Amino acid sequence: MENLEKYIEHTLLKQDATKEEFEKLYDEAKRYNFRAVCVNPLYVKQAKTYLKDTAVKVVTVIGFPLGANTSEVKTFEAQKALTDGADEIDMVINVSAIKDNNWDFVFEDIKCVKNVCPNNVLKVILETDLLTEAEIKKACEICVEAKADFVKTCTGFVKNGVGAKVNDVELIYKTVSPYGLKVKASGGIRDRQSALNMIKAGAYSLGTSSGVKIVQD
Amino acid sequence: MENLEKYIEHTLLKQDATKEEFEKLYDEAKRYNFRAVCVNPLYVKQAKTYLKDTAVKVVTVIGFPLGANTSEVKTFEAQKALTDGADEIDMVINVSAIKDNNWDFVFEDIKCVKNVCPNNVLKVILETDLLTEAEIKKACEICVEAKADFVKTCTGFVKNGVGAKVNDVELIYKTVSPYGLKVKASGGIRDRQSALNMIKAGAYSLGTSSGVKIVQD
Repeated sequence: MENLEKYIEHTLLKQDATKEEFEKLYDEAKRYNFRAVCVNPLYVKQAKTYLKDTAVKVVTVIGFPLGANTSEVKTFEAQKALTDGADEIDMVINVSAIKDNNWDFVFEDIKCVKNVCPNNVLKVILETDLLTEAEIKKACEICVEAKADFVKTCTGFVKNGVGAKVNDVELIYKTVSPYGLKVKASGGIRDRQSALNMIKAGAYSLGTSSGVKIVQD
Repeated sequence: MENLEKYIEHTLLKQDATKEEFEKLYDEAKRYNFRAVCVNPLYVKQAKTYLKDTAVKVVTVIGFPLGANTSEVKTFEAQKALTDGADEIDMVINVSAIKDNNWDFVFEDIKCVKNVCPNNVLKVILETDLLTEAEIKKACEICVEAKADFVKTCTGFVKNGVGAKVNDVELIYKTVSPYGLKVKASGGIRDRQSALNMIKAGAYSLGTSSGVKIVQD
């Protein structure tokens, strides 16, 4: 596999990350020509400044990692992130609404955020660790309907979660790719082999904090 | 210890909680006369409706659990929660700013949120699992300066975090109580004995999902 770096969304979302760690992230993203960096909303401006005049995209996360705030707040957070220079928005779906079979809410929640970023990539994080296959499939269909651009597997923050699984990525890919949506695999991707497995399963991009290791393996 | 129930903030923050689980939470809070329920922002309206005509307060969490969004978004989220009927706001401090010694940011972040809830209790979650004693002490001083009402120990979402520790609660109490601020201990409080230990250390309220067990123990 060539150009593995073009799949990597170099990710730093832990809540105690220091300025040095962020600078290292940006430097590595530049050096290895990664697809993107992925940081919390507060760091979008900083990332954009460090990465100007590069092709590295700035991705941020909205309603992260619980997805349990109101659509109004998710929308406001997304708008602010775009103003700050975010290229792509990874929002967390409302898992409780899925569990309650409240699919109208799931749809409207995504639709609201897509409305404020019509020209930017919107990824919807499903949190596959918490969902059945039937729920994953139905959530994918809702993402298609709400005109999301990507479906993403995991936040990486579920207690005892395993993260992206090959069969989940395959299921998502099979469900959304006929409609032009792409798949971001994230959570637990820590070496070259798991990266390759995810790509083979249909992943268009990989959310990972092990990007450097993956391209060096 | 009598009236242990008056310390309990009956908490349900997991991202896949169902309607049945929320209704059980509200029912138990009423039945046991707990101090409060603590839910994610999307559920504030629902909680307020279920708990009208009771003394049970509705507490919600802001910038939760990472604390890594902008002050503007935290402020908007707090305002929306108040509009929806929240009585108290538990916001997450920015831990990265603490690690970077950027105390001005930590202060302003809290101050912004306090500005929109001058008449409501604002608790600041420090995330003690990630902090040194010196950082906890300094963060407490900033909370005093920014006119927060409570200092709270933990989100309960730190990977491998232990949650509230007696010596942390003692340190927080010692630092903030002379200025009239109270302490909420949260994270890992699962039985009567740990509840009693926290109260003895200075906790005014307890964030826990084990409230029923605690009062029945």
